[in-house]
Amino acid sequence: MALPSFTDDFPGWYQEVVRQADLAENSLVRGTMVIKPAGYAMWEAIRDALDVRFKETGHQNLYFPMFIPLRLLEREKEHVEGFAPEFAMVTHAGGEELAEPLVVRPTSETIIWDTYAKWVQSYRDLPLLYNQWANVVRWELRPRLFLRTTEFLWQEGHTAHETEEEAWEEARRMLEAYRQVAEDVMAMPVFLGRKTPAERFPGAVETFTIEALMRDRKALQAGTSHYLGQNFAKAYGVQYLGRDGEQHFAEATSWGASTRLVGGLIMAHGDEKGLRLPPRVAPIQVVVVPIFRNDEERARVLGETQRLAETWRAAGLRVKADDRDDLRPGYKFADWELRGVPVRVEIGPRDLDASQVTIVRRDTGAKSEVGLDAVAATLTGLQDEIQRALFDDALAFRDAHTTRVRSYDELRDAIEDPGGFVIGGWCGDAVCEAKVKAETKATIRFLPFEPEPADGPCVVCAQAAVDTAAWAIAY
Amino acid sequence: MALPSFTDDFPGWYQEVVRQADLAENSLVRGTMVIKPAGYAMWEAIRDALDVRFKETGHQNLYFPMFIPLRLLEREKEHVEGFAPEFAMVTHAGGEELAEPLVVRPTSETIIWDTYAKWVQSYRDLPLLYNQWANVVRWELRPRLFLRTTEFLWQEGHTAHETEEEAWEEARRMLEAYRQVAEDVMAMPVFLGRKTPAERFPGAVETFTIEALMRDRKALQAGTSHYLGQNFAKAYGVQYLGRDGEQHFAEATSWGASTRLVGGLIMAHGDEKGLRLPPRVAPIQVVVVPIFRNDEERARVLGETQRLAETWRAAGLRVKADDRDDLRPGYKFADWELRGVPVRVEIGPRDLDASQVTIVRRDTGAKSEVGLDAVAATLTGLQDEIQRALFDDALAFRDAHTTRVRSYDELRDAIEDPGGFVIGGWCGDAVCEAKVKAETKATIRFLPFEPEPADGPCVVCAQAAVDTAAWAIAY
Repeated sequence: MALPSFTDDFPGWYQEVVRQADLAENSLVRGTMVIKPAGYAMWEAIRDALDVRFKETGHQNLYFPMFIPLRLLEREKEHVEGFAPEFAMVTHAGGEELAEPLVVRPTSETIIWDTYAKWVQSYRDLPLLYNQWANVVRWELRPRLFLRTTEFLWQEGHTAHETEEEAWEEARRMLEAYRQVAEDVMAMPVFLGRKTPAERFPGAVETFTIEALMRDRKALQAGTSHYLGQNFAKAYGVQYLGRDGEQHFAEATSWGASTRLVGGLIMAHGDEKGLRLPPRVAPIQVVVVPIFRNDEERARVLGETQRLAETWRAAGLRVKADDRDDLRPGYKFADWELRGVPVRVEIGPRDLDASQVTIVRRDTGAKSEVGLDAVAATLTGLQDEIQRALFDDALAFRDAHTTRVRSYDELRDAIEDPGGFVIGGWCGDAVCEAKVKAETKATIRFLPFEPEPADGPCVVCAQAAVDTAAWAIAY
Repeated sequence: MALPSFTDDFPGWYQEVVRQADLAENSLVRGTMVIKPAGYAMWEAIRDALDVRFKETGHQNLYFPMFIPLRLLEREKEHVEGFAPEFAMVTHAGGEELAEPLVVRPTSETIIWDTYAKWVQSYRDLPLLYNQWANVVRWELRPRLFLRTTEFLWQEGHTAHETEEEAWEEARRMLEAYRQVAEDVMAMPVFLGRKTPAERFPGAVETFTIEALMRDRKALQAGTSHYLGQNFAKAYGVQYLGRDGEQHFAEATSWGASTRLVGGLIMAHGDEKGLRLPPRVAPIQVVVVPIFRNDEERARVLGETQRLAETWRAAGLRVKADDRDDLRPGYKFADWELRGVPVRVEIGPRDLDASQVTIVRRDTGAKSEVGLDAVAATLTGLQDEIQRALFDDALAFRDAHTTRVRSYDELRDAIEDPGGFVIGGWCGDAVCEAKVKAETKATIRFLPFEPEPADGPCVVCAQAAVDTAAWAIAY
């Protein structure tokens, strides 16, 4: 079935791509979703890429319970206020009413830092470099598949350190891990920066973010890393005997990325025909479509298709041979284009007569005929090429939708057209930030890591700028 | 700290090993646990071994929400009756009382089959071969770390098929996958068989099981696979247009294995000194302990330790160099023995003078000196050898604790001594089954796949035996 227009009805396009490509669907409970095999395979690729980087940087996985006693959450005031409206609460269990309600974790700082109090006695116990893969629940009023769901899958890293410096470094190191996965694996260019106080994680001293641009020119926060200072150590009593013989509160970070990234993948690369998947996260990298008109051709082509697919698999490619009998080649072409498979190989009797196949790139539509001897090498080379081309294409799109402005009029115009990121001076006042949000819906997505007084005044109030802000309308 | 006696106080030994080896600990909410990094790494190894076998047999992963509306669960009567006493229920969310309580999944047949009704229209949509990795909640009155916890991690496979035969084959195929992981990866021999009606999964037509023997002579159900017939298809309306042009209900299986397997690993192989980990699941396969008496020796030995550890890592081994300065070698030896690392390498100045190291096996305590040139090959060979030796040792233990009996007196005696599995004729009557349970605490752990009238009468009532039952006291 035809997709809604990618340019005129992006939300409709997104919804239909997710449905027709079998990525996910709404489930019975408001805001919850079933992640279908094709969508889950994309998440597995992202998850594995993150997990290997966490382990390379010295982190270990563990697992904390998802039920958190309400009183425990209430100990860090700013944190609980940020999340309380989204709590889901268990009040009955084992056939009885519980003495105290349990909150299904919206994030795990509270239960983890309460436990760290037992694990940390001395500087010798530090750092703690732990991560968990888990489901979390935040009750959503305006859910959207992958992007905002009541239950979602994520990882949350929670580290404890001796010094402020070490914790800052950790928060930045994990932001870099997110950047690598976004850019090098998902082929999705991201800006890195700092959040404003209004956009910070509840309970954080500083929140770092990676921000990507979607094809509807809206920004997507794709991963955040927080320097939490001693806020949680103080709330949960995590003190250690320092090298100086004194008691100190531990320094904290936390960092998370979620199934929302699957939504980012769809919206960063899609086109009128559907998904375009970067080869490194594509569950199927090469689809082979056999072409025949009668039973004799069928036998010959199917046999060769299976044999060739096997040799390409042996070359390390994830290959699917589409031998469905009840569908025409044209339907299959459109179907695999919708599903974003990076390369299609067509094999017909005339191809076999000429000892060749036809290869079609999903990203550009470019078609070429390749001799059988060279196909494995061509397919392998194409994976790298398409990976790079999708990144370059997304980067060019972002460049075309990043504007520097010097006045409020310019800011408003740029948010309208070309959209995307609009960069200009900011006085640092939350009032100016709120005004832009109220009048244009754009929020400050990030600030540079260190304040950079802009070349020009605050674009909102025209007072002196103390920083350079990047505004965008965001998911 | 010394462990409680492995032979006289096995429960105390288990609890202390879990604590001292940093595998897990109780969390705030009754029955919930924190899985610590060392325990989680064991779970990751088991999980990966299962996941690869699921994928090899054509299954894909997906993810269903954990919240299930109560009314949905109530549609399969036998199923809901089995699980209702253990439900945890969410009654409030987003600051409001919900119109309908949500059950936190104890298992997902209901929500999955309700969704399959949308996915299955024709025989062309079958089979569905899906699995999910998830957390589940069953309120536990007598929790025990890893073995019975209120929240646990597991996988649950849920498949839909055209024919009864295909579904039976699937249920048996996945039992075989569990057997492979238990025996070939965890080095834990298991018996395979069928459950009695009293021990079946609520809603199943037939439950298959793998049953292992722990070192206290108690049995552990280590994985189950269920043939569910059309029970769930009928309750949730999953019908398909068959090849014959008629509507049919789909045939179902489900199968699950959980973090309980980590408990099995501990109890199947442990000894007085602590864990003994099979190399294939050991997060650390080789620990290197440097030995020195002064700063000069220290510099030399530590340098060589790091260099050698790196070469052994390059040979594909998971190697940890224990360079902690504040601990004596003897303490380190005991610590790594407790944690079950399969092989210890000791490196001292005299070893280096002789171009050799000392290698100590955790399973046997055997000590040998090996020239530097041969260490990598020796360590690699030892992994296979220890893997096999642990399996053989567990098998010999099980053989010594499996008894065939012909009368009730023999049954009672054998359950007492030697304990373990006691095998004898059974008339098939639940009354006899209940009597043994009430009088000896032993339950029927499994029956052969096909009924085997035993050589002798029912050991309980002396009537004709229609089957051969294996009794044991179980976790």
